[in-house]
Amino acid sequence: MADDQAKFLLSERDIPTHWVNLLPDLPGEPLPPLHPATMQPVGPDDLAAIFPMALIAQEVSPAPEVEIPGPVREAYRLWRPTPLYRARRFEQALGTPARIYYKYEGTSPPGSHKPNTAIAQAYENSRAGIRKLSTETGAGQWGSALAFACALFGLECEVFMVGASYDQKPYRRSMMETWGATVHRSPSDLTSSGKSQAHHPTGSLGIAISEAVEIAAQSPDTNYSLGSVLNHVLLHQTVIGQEAILQMGLAGDEPDVVVGCVGGGSNFAGLTFPFLRRVLRGEAQMRFVAAEPAACPTLTRGAYRYDFGDTAGLTPLMPMYTLGHDFVPPPVHAGGLRYHGDSPMVSGLVKAGVVEARAYRQNETFAAAVQFARAEGIIPGPEPAHAIRAVVEEAEAARAAGEPRVILFGLSGHGHFDLSAYDAYLAGSLEDPEFSEADMDAALARLPETPAIV
Amino acid sequence: MADDQAKFLLSERDIPTHWVNLLPDLPGEPLPPLHPATMQPVGPDDLAAIFPMALIAQEVSPAPEVEIPGPVREAYRLWRPTPLYRARRFEQALGTPARIYYKYEGTSPPGSHKPNTAIAQAYENSRAGIRKLSTETGAGQWGSALAFACALFGLECEVFMVGASYDQKPYRRSMMETWGATVHRSPSDLTSSGKSQAHHPTGSLGIAISEAVEIAAQSPDTNYSLGSVLNHVLLHQTVIGQEAILQMGLAGDEPDVVVGCVGGGSNFAGLTFPFLRRVLRGEAQMRFVAAEPAACPTLTRGAYRYDFGDTAGLTPLMPMYTLGHDFVPPPVHAGGLRYHGDSPMVSGLVKAGVVEARAYRQNETFAAAVQFARAEGIIPGPEPAHAIRAVVEEAEAARAAGEPRVILFGLSGHGHFDLSAYDAYLAGSLEDPEFSEADMDAALARLPETPAIV
Repeated sequence: MADDQAKFLLSERDIPTHWVNLLPDLPGEPLPPLHPATMQPVGPDDLAAIFPMALIAQEVSPAPEVEIPGPVREAYRLWRPTPLYRARRFEQALGTPARIYYKYEGTSPPGSHKPNTAIAQAYENSRAGIRKLSTETGAGQWGSALAFACALFGLECEVFMVGASYDQKPYRRSMMETWGATVHRSPSDLTSSGKSQAHHPTGSLGIAISEAVEIAAQSPDTNYSLGSVLNHVLLHQTVIGQEAILQMGLAGDEPDVVVGCVGGGSNFAGLTFPFLRRVLRGEAQMRFVAAEPAACPTLTRGAYRYDFGDTAGLTPLMPMYTLGHDFVPPPVHAGGLRYHGDSPMVSGLVKAGVVEARAYRQNETFAAAVQFARAEGIIPGPEPAHAIRAVVEEAEAARAAGEPRVILFGLSGHGHFDLSAYDAYLAGSLEDPEFSEADMDAALARLPETPAIV
Repeated sequence: MADDQAKFLLSERDIPTHWVNLLPDLPGEPLPPLHPATMQPVGPDDLAAIFPMALIAQEVSPAPEVEIPGPVREAYRLWRPTPLYRARRFEQALGTPARIYYKYEGTSPPGSHKPNTAIAQAYENSRAGIRKLSTETGAGQWGSALAFACALFGLECEVFMVGASYDQKPYRRSMMETWGATVHRSPSDLTSSGKSQAHHPTGSLGIAISEAVEIAAQSPDTNYSLGSVLNHVLLHQTVIGQEAILQMGLAGDEPDVVVGCVGGGSNFAGLTFPFLRRVLRGEAQMRFVAAEPAACPTLTRGAYRYDFGDTAGLTPLMPMYTLGHDFVPPPVHAGGLRYHGDSPMVSGLVKAGVVEARAYRQNETFAAAVQFARAEGIIPGPEPAHAIRAVVEEAEAARAAGEPRVILFGLSGHGHFDLSAYDAYLAGSLEDPEFSEADMDAALARLPETPAIV
């Protein structure tokens, strides 16, 4: 039967009981984040103004596994385990001997993998007596996920939405409001960070982060919540890969290559870390491919060094691949991948050569997404469309080699709120921004003076 | 474990092998459709210009079960079986002793139950050598489903989209085009029906049907496809209820009442007919509630008689509850429920008193939908929001009676393309059209002279 199935489902019993913490398995000592004022390593106390201690403990935990609290697993059951599909029709369309599988996170109510961590963060904050969470959102996926999670745990949710998205994606805003969140166009007049940028026509993720952090830092009963980059966020996403390991077992297959798109790194980490741990421990062999936009080529062309997480330089500095914290990528539709840096853990794995990074142009990415949609039905979000583009390459390589390689990729969300981009692609009017050597040099020249990574 | 679960999943093995045809179990002889010119019963040959014989045979089949063709079951596996949920958080929010379950059809790629029949229709047409299907779409759910199905079976798909929707819902159009369909704003200049209505500012479902039928009637390799009302369409939807019976078994519960929204009747029939057969055969006892908009109260206030299916009076006349074929309902957001008539089978069940119909206003419907979304996560489409409104009533009645009644309802699709309506509701600016006695009298006075139902 397995050889015949289109999808591999698990029961609620199979929702993981622990998150996978890859930190102790990484080569070398972890590099600490640095305080933006002193450039000295940041300690837990520095973070306590905006994060609950339970999440700070997860951020620095040396334990290889962290137990998932009961109420979090309970909330996960609203949509987890998510399905793993065998993409038979896509294989046929590509004419490849490869067997292609995808783990689909778009069945969550907000439509992406983001609630895996939003739920965990909302729970720990509610347990710590916090009344409200503030955050920023660009494309709207993260803000939607946190709004949903706050509705489940009785928290208020205040979202600063990048002005351009607020204007162009009113339905993402309506979604957050339907779950009870308050959404502000950023820059707003509610914060000094916003007021100082009042003239900014579109806003930016950097400004929105500053506004959300400022709101959280002001009130003892309000905390800040981040949707990617940090260790504890990546940790929460590892339910994805653990389920995928069970499901690949049901399918009777083992991946030769695991593919995911990378913005801040949480989707990629969620799928790959449980597989990566097995590889790092010498229990398995496979390749890992991280797909990013050519318009924001952090992992493929950025510098590996300490940089700030936000534009204004208020957050701790992190060791990562970066294009410079004031780099503003061209407005490609994969809003979730438009980040100047990358999570320190994923960056370290690329630096160590364990993960291979590849960058793709916007039009070739949408071409792959449309081919996938016409074969498999699901219309992918623009972010995982980058993973699909990499899968097409891998499938072609398998055909060239005449090998039935096994490809697993993460389909992190649907594209129901991104159809204007498909519209532009089908009309032939989708922009295809490139990132020139001069752009790159200029961006890297603006990198801050920071301690070297040794 | 069952008592603890949030959802009840089936494996692909459990996808039904047959559709349930309720026709032979209905009380009395079925009333035939009448030819619009002669008012005489329509025979299979009258339909052969626009439908393949296999579907015509299903339309009039006296068999209690119809086998599902292999390629249709194969395509169903892309998303079926769909999940059945226990709405524990919604029960808590309502403070009811009732146990509430919902069967969720929104996991299909187009986001509703519509592909259950679109797949079956595309398959039978492709098998009959047809090259292209034409259809109309209002809100866009049906056009999306047929575009998806045609992509799977290599058919061209031409959709006439009601002008107002075409202008207001560009993303539904983009979705259809992503799956390869051609979408025209109706009225178009491609048909004489369209040209004769060229001045019409918004278009209507009636005009769009006329355009699609005209295109199909002109070419021997083009057929027409309808998304509701007809017997064979309702037949294809019965996979929903058959799965739900298995899943209620897993949950260890039996419904006291089954609730669904009704537009043309296919969603309601899909969930209820397998349960209804058991009731009609005396094997079970339960109630059935059909929920419709107060702005288009076909079942609750319409006349039970022969009427045309379309505005222009070109289709056969069917025995049904109707508000008159030229009735144009107010523009409520539940576009899928804005139909002047109803399927003959569902109409007959209401007439016989087996199904109870109730009508709800737009604002009370959205209030129920928002309460549901904040408890369960999923944002319902405006159509199934009517079912949720009825569920709230049933849950309150259970609380008043102090009885732990079991309520099952059909959540036929998500509301990802309807968030402007949620926006209006949350802003307090959602219209709440009523249907006055004078409106009703005027509509019924316009009913055509047709043979009486005896």
